Amino acid sequence: MPEQRIRADIIAADNEKRVSALKVGYEALGAKLSGEGIDIDTITENVAEFFVAIPSWGVGTGGTRFARFPGIGEPRNIFDKLDDCAVIHQLTQATPRVSLHIPWDKVDDPRQLKAHADALGLSFDAMNSNTFSDAPGQEHSYKYGSLSHTNSGTRQQAIEHNIECIEIGKIIGSKALTVWIGDGSNFPGQTNFMRSFERYLDSMKAIYKRLPSDWRIFTEHKMYEPAFYSTVVQDWGTNYLIATELGNKAYCLVDLGHHAPNVNIEMIVARLVQFRKLGGFHFNDSKYGDDDLDSGSIDPYRLFLVFNELVDAEYRKTRDFHPAHMIDQSHNVTDPIESLICSANEIRRAYAQALIVDRKALEDYQEANDALMASETLKNAFRTDVEPILAMARLKSGGAIAPVAAFRASGYRESVGKERPIVASGGGGIV
Amino acid sequence: MPEQRIRADIIAADNEKRVSALKVGYEALGAKLSGEGIDIDTITENVAEFFVAIPSWGVGTGGTRFARFPGIGEPRNIFDKLDDCAVIHQLTQATPRVSLHIPWDKVDDPRQLKAHADALGLSFDAMNSNTFSDAPGQEHSYKYGSLSHTNSGTRQQAIEHNIECIEIGKIIGSKALTVWIGDGSNFPGQTNFMRSFERYLDSMKAIYKRLPSDWRIFTEHKMYEPAFYSTVVQDWGTNYLIATELGNKAYCLVDLGHHAPNVNIEMIVARLVQFRKLGGFHFNDSKYGDDDLDSGSIDPYRLFLVFNELVDAEYRKTRDFHPAHMIDQSHNVTDPIESLICSANEIRRAYAQALIVDRKALEDYQEANDALMASETLKNAFRTDVEPILAMARLKSGGAIAPVAAFRASGYRESVGKERPIVASGGGGIV
Amino acid sequence: MPEQRIRADIIAADNEKRVSALKVGYEALGAKLSGEGIDIDTITENVAEFFVAIPSWGVGTGGTRFARFPGIGEPRNIFDKLDDCAVIHQLTQATPRVSLHIPWDKVDDPRQLKAHADALGLSFDAMNSNTFSDAPGQEHSYKYGSLSHTNSGTRQQAIEHNIECIEIGKIIGSKALTVWIGDGSNFPGQTNFMRSFERYLDSMKAIYKRLPSDWRIFTEHKMYEPAFYSTVVQDWGTNYLIATELGNKAYCLVDLGHHAPNVNIEMIVARLVQFRKLGGFHFNDSKYGDDDLDSGSIDPYRLFLVFNELVDAEYRKTRDFHPAHMIDQSHNVTDPIESLICSANEIRRAYAQALIVDRKALEDYQEANDALMASETLKNAFRTDVEPILAMARLKSGGAIAPVAAFRASGYRESVGKERPIVASGGGGIV
Amino acid sequence: MPEQRIRADIIAADNEKRVSALKVGYEALGAKLSGEGIDIDTITENVAEFFVAIPSWGVGTGGTRFARFPGIGEPRNIFDKLDDCAVIHQLTQATPRVSLHIPWDKVDDPRQLKAHADALGLSFDAMNSNTFSDAPGQEHSYKYGSLSHTNSGTRQQAIEHNIECIEIGKIIGSKALTVWIGDGSNFPGQTNFMRSFERYLDSMKAIYKRLPSDWRIFTEHKMYEPAFYSTVVQDWGTNYLIATELGNKAYCLVDLGHHAPNVNIEMIVARLVQFRKLGGFHFNDSKYGDDDLDSGSIDPYRLFLVFNELVDAEYRKTRDFHPAHMIDQSHNVTDPIESLICSANEIRRAYAQALIVDRKALEDYQEANDALMASETLKNAFRTDVEPILAMARLKSGGAIAPVAAFRASGYRESVGKERPIVASGGGGIV
Repeated sequence: MPEQRIRADIIAADNEKRVSALKVGYEALGAKLSGEGIDIDTITENVAEFFVAIPSWGVGTGGTRFARFPGIGEPRNIFDKLDDCAVIHQLTQATPRVSLHIPWDKVDDPRQLKAHADALGLSFDAMNSNTFSDAPGQEHSYKYGSLSHTNSGTRQQAIEHNIECIEIGKIIGSKALTVWIGDGSNFPGQTNFMRSFERYLDSMKAIYKRLPSDWRIFTEHKMYEPAFYSTVVQDWGTNYLIATELGNKAYCLVDLGHHAPNVNIEMIVARLVQFRKLGGFHFNDSKYGDDDLDSGSIDPYRLFLVFNELVDAEYRKTRDFHPAHMIDQSHNVTDPIESLICSANEIRRAYAQALIVDRKALEDYQEANDALMASETLKNAFRTDVEPILAMARLKSGGAIAPVAAFRASGYRESVGKERPIVASGGGGIV
Repeated sequence: MPEQRIRADIIAADNEKRVSALKVGYEALGAKLSGEGIDIDTITENVAEFFVAIPSWGVGTGGTRFARFPGIGEPRNIFDKLDDCAVIHQLTQATPRVSLHIPWDKVDDPRQLKAHADALGLSFDAMNSNTFSDAPGQEHSYKYGSLSHTNSGTRQQAIEHNIECIEIGKIIGSKALTVWIGDGSNFPGQTNFMRSFERYLDSMKAIYKRLPSDWRIFTEHKMYEPAFYSTVVQDWGTNYLIATELGNKAYCLVDLGHHAPNVNIEMIVARLVQFRKLGGFHFNDSKYGDDDLDSGSIDPYRLFLVFNELVDAEYRKTRDFHPAHMIDQSHNVTDPIESLICSANEIRRAYAQALIVDRKALEDYQEANDALMASETLKNAFRTDVEPILAMARLKSGGAIAPVAAFRASGYRESVGKERPIVASGGGGIV
Repeated sequence: MPEQRIRADIIAADNEKRVSALKVGYEALGAKLSGEGIDIDTITENVAEFFVAIPSWGVGTGGTRFARFPGIGEPRNIFDKLDDCAVIHQLTQATPRVSLHIPWDKVDDPRQLKAHADALGLSFDAMNSNTFSDAPGQEHSYKYGSLSHTNSGTRQQAIEHNIECIEIGKIIGSKALTVWIGDGSNFPGQTNFMRSFERYLDSMKAIYKRLPSDWRIFTEHKMYEPAFYSTVVQDWGTNYLIATELGNKAYCLVDLGHHAPNVNIEMIVARLVQFRKLGGFHFNDSKYGDDDLDSGSIDPYRLFLVFNELVDAEYRKTRDFHPAHMIDQSHNVTDPIESLICSANEIRRAYAQALIVDRKALEDYQEANDALMASETLKNAFRTDVEPILAMARLKSGGAIAPVAAFRASGYRESVGKERPIVASGGGGIV
Repeated sequence: MPEQRIRADIIAADNEKRVSALKVGYEALGAKLSGEGIDIDTITENVAEFFVAIPSWGVGTGGTRFARFPGIGEPRNIFDKLDDCAVIHQLTQATPRVSLHIPWDKVDDPRQLKAHADALGLSFDAMNSNTFSDAPGQEHSYKYGSLSHTNSGTRQQAIEHNIECIEIGKIIGSKALTVWIGDGSNFPGQTNFMRSFERYLDSMKAIYKRLPSDWRIFTEHKMYEPAFYSTVVQDWGTNYLIATELGNKAYCLVDLGHHAPNVNIEMIVARLVQFRKLGGFHFNDSKYGDDDLDSGSIDPYRLFLVFNELVDAEYRKTRDFHPAHMIDQSHNVTDPIESLICSANEIRRAYAQALIVDRKALEDYQEANDALMASETLKNAFRTDVEPILAMARLKSGGAIAPVAAFRASGYRESVGKERPIVASGGGGIV
């Protein structure tokens, strides 16, 4: 039985108030779905087994280059972060794994991390390396790049950092390395596109050699930021080339906010599924750029359409299909714990809605080019209010029917606010 | 000696007025370039050997879904179009080849095309198939797709049309087939992304089998339009997959207006060069979408940056590097002949500017991460007014120093306006 | 009792099959909403009184510059179009008004239109002028503009056309004129921005003078297309200037597909409401540009957020708030009648969802900067499946519970397919 | 004679090496322009009198939310910044004024600033307030907004800060206040658009009341960042409303990087000129968002087109036309002094190119709808290499022919690197 950061009776009391209304709603939905030939309990079970990893950096307040406005009870270190992650999982039962960022989460002995996580009932997802900022005391600066830097010493330092991440991950039970770099340029001419990519590939091959046989390596593309003219791994096309060049443990990671305006992301997902290179996701939402907003908060239908591809791939029993699901968001104006609770929920919501799509009907409409009814088939599933399914999945797993309400009732934030000192408002000066 | 649609003495007279000023400008520029270690005559020779193909459909006035406003003397058929193309080449000496669109340019006997072109001193570039609109009498409609259609009969019809294009091309001396399709969807759910692409690939493989050994096949990606939710060949990533799946005669064609907003196109060019899949270009310019505006009219620096990649590839003696250069524009408010003259010029301008980049200095600045001087190195070349080089290349090849002025002086437009009947203003009603 | 194009017993039979399930769903939803303090019948009544106008051109199949693929039974003229519109209204009871486009819908005697519409139980919404294409026999061409043209004769012709639209509208009972022009430029330098806008304003003032005192004039902004470098009325800022310069009968029309990528449209709506210049909407959806896709088919949450502003304005009893609701879509791959049925439904859906937002709670969360709960308040309303409300509103008004199913059951399309000749597949050649 | 941070003999020595080549180039250009009826010396004089203000924050290295990589010799305070600004002006003779940011540049006694600037031959441009980040010790946080905050105390604090900026400005000789705020929201529903804007306007009116009669107030719109769903002053339409509501000392500031993708910025400039609300510019360049790249480094033709509007307004003797010119860039990978030197140059380059446009010919082509020649008229001016004019303007005013080369020769950076301590690499942790 894991240590619980929120007292079980608080959750139970909150659930108690809501359980009868939930049952009414669940039954009504069950009857409706039954009329469509769907067994609600099967959907609920599927949802209960769907998990999404929390990024350790997500439980701290994020910011922009202009400012960061911390909240109360900001986690001081990775142990505090794991505590916060445990709260999210306790309430949602959807987030049993945490994804670390090195060196931000580096400790003297990684076994301490493992022990703390074990006690909380958590485990570790993909390791994330960081060569987009300079750590104190680092020999070579990443100002002009890391894995693609013109200087071989800088590249070697970045390679070794990634290998270190693998080594830490091996100790704590991770099975994947996620590599995102900021390498690129701010001026036409600053870098040579071909030479940069050759150097990048060489560096990645050196890292790949050190990847354990049961690990996967995920590379993440991003259109721009922090580089504002060109970025080495700028889109899924380049990402696919990387995964192909490296080998069959290499996969592409799709961050929903890393594309050009108007791009059809669900189609990119379909292409990567088809060519067996979809590694997984960094979930979030965006309106403008890499806004890192809460999943499903801006365009929930788009999130559903992504899950429609994933469920379709399952439905078709696609080979080698086992994407990793991670959240990657920046919580600038909300309590990060609350945002992550809601986001885990939204992701499961999209999954549940995709599960109830009538795929046989959809296929027939597609075959007949009945565009209107094909669209309606998706919309019908999307319009279904599946919250009773999500709530029941949480309840049955020991979580909260209304996790944000239970979190607020628990007083956790105020409590850690007392233990953890106030952080001065940060940022500013960077323009 | 080819037939000339514009009397040689008209061009000679116009040149006569301008030649002394040209010589002054050429000498001044030559002196300046000489100071930078560049021999202007070598540049001029390179420019004189650089050609770009004219699309047969480009000499007619284009339009939008809202309307088309024809000009006077619109070409009535492919023979008129070839005449207009010959005028462009006569004046610019930059456009000896014409790219046909079937069935628009289909005639009873393709040898007639060959004979007419031979007489005009023209030859034929890539063949373009058309499965994005229905030809009269066609059995299956392309309303819901062509090469990726759910119906095998429709796919077969589209395959056979492409094979027919190859057959015509073989007779007239073409060596390439360009395939652009409008297949896609307007609604989420309308098509299954994976199934559609599988069907597309199967169809393309059937076409590829019929490609002569000395031909290349170019596939063209486009983000959207005419399909407004998804497009089967939506970006260079998908295009690359196609070229890889088909084989080593298959290459990617880059139309400068077919990308998402803000996309770094020159980087896509670099990736395709590096992975030996750059087939060539459809040159034009755009501000919003596939605007098909005149090359270099909106963002001339971007056009230069594309050529910077091409010249860099030559400089590095990249293997298998022989991209095709074609214009693909829609001339809605200008005389198409004048626009094509200017566009051929702009394309050569970008090439000339890229040729005078100090590549050794650039490389050193890149190596040293001197972003500012690397940028300045490109900007210096771009700022150079190379018009004297372009004009001298035309003059030495027998063209016009000021081709638009010479065209206007020739009275060609008024002359064909008398022969070719006025076309009623078209379009309208499509919204 | 209006003439009915679909036999009442067909609709009744289809409803009969569905009414008991509807009642179950309606009661369950009623109970849920009641728990939130909302009376479902009040919402249903509000929805039943919400109407959206059909564009006459919307019942024909649309297309792109590349092609148009007509369906069977295409309306031959405005009388056929009115018949099709009557079918949409008969089934949805949501679309009692039709918006005409002149000269497309021009007849010898406008009273014929009025009589036909009266018989069908329809009336007329805003008149739409057309100066973006040349009508046969027109003296001056609009190739280079209309109301902003450099030539005063062309401007005068465009002014008179708009006045003619008013005159026709007066006879048939319209109370508004919508002016959308394609004027702009394809090249930097082609037009002088200031001079063009001055001429446009002068022309509009001449039209405004002829506007009856009980009419409104709506101007529509659009970022681009058919002009691809600049457009005279390019955004809401310019549109607002126009409405201000003209006077208090002049208002801004918002077409949801006419904005730059990523623009927050609901915020523009709020600004126009606040400054009393919101005239109304052209509803549709888009992913890339002015795609004119079916309302709510791409981003249903965005449509909801627009209605959230409208209902908020009602809630706050904003003065002079009476926006016009019109659909403006291009149906390229669906039966236009079916698409318009669904779109009217989607628009009502967004309205119903906005009506059930807990505005008091929202206001409190906004006041307290509780961003998460404010967001959840909107999402909760959006997630609610309000289809039972929409269906009940239709049923009570005499429409169909499942209007597309009833339409298909009616055989209307096949029937008109026999009367109305097949139209050859159009377009092509415009590139 | 101002104090000089770079020894005059160093500049003189560098100029000496270049002056004869400059004279040759200047004469050749002069001859060419003379042929077009343009007196080169007049252009040079105009250019020499064109100035652009330097932002004090621009001389420090910028960064992103991911990291900041400082260079050597980072300015420690506003006095160091003024020294760096003086170097830029000494070399370019184009930047005599500095724009301050409060509280970043706040000192105990503003007269110290005045004295230091006077000694360096500098003066002060617009004051910039900062309510987008929290200053240490500040009572109310701007986490949820400033001038539009729901809390009146927070708004009052922000108002008072702006008034303080005016007070400081009065002492140091500034004549304008620039207000840019980050207020907005990250979630639909977080703020009420109308209420927020009402509060913003009320706050601005309170500030406006305290504006001296000979000052102007500039408000700056921006589409997004730091707020990622909505921004209170999101576009020029809203900005225009503000300037109109406030009064005739209020004007709109256009930052070139603050618009939606693809937006035609030069047209916005024209609209603001026409309606007498153009306050001025924050110059920079961008490819994706508010990238704050060096002016003219990404799309130099766009910068030229903006200046084309400004020169056209001068040419037409537009009333009340006196825009302020300021640079606002973030120098992340270059020496900020070098970037600012080049940017001042690029801005003057665009101005010089716009000055040599043949406006009479352009007007005639526009009147005749000769789109091609109108475009060519602009392109001809843009293609002209005006560097000899810029260099001559600098030389005659006492600056450097090749200011970056002279700067590098001076050893200034190395020298301040010794005085100013190394700043640890910053940022990181904000995601």
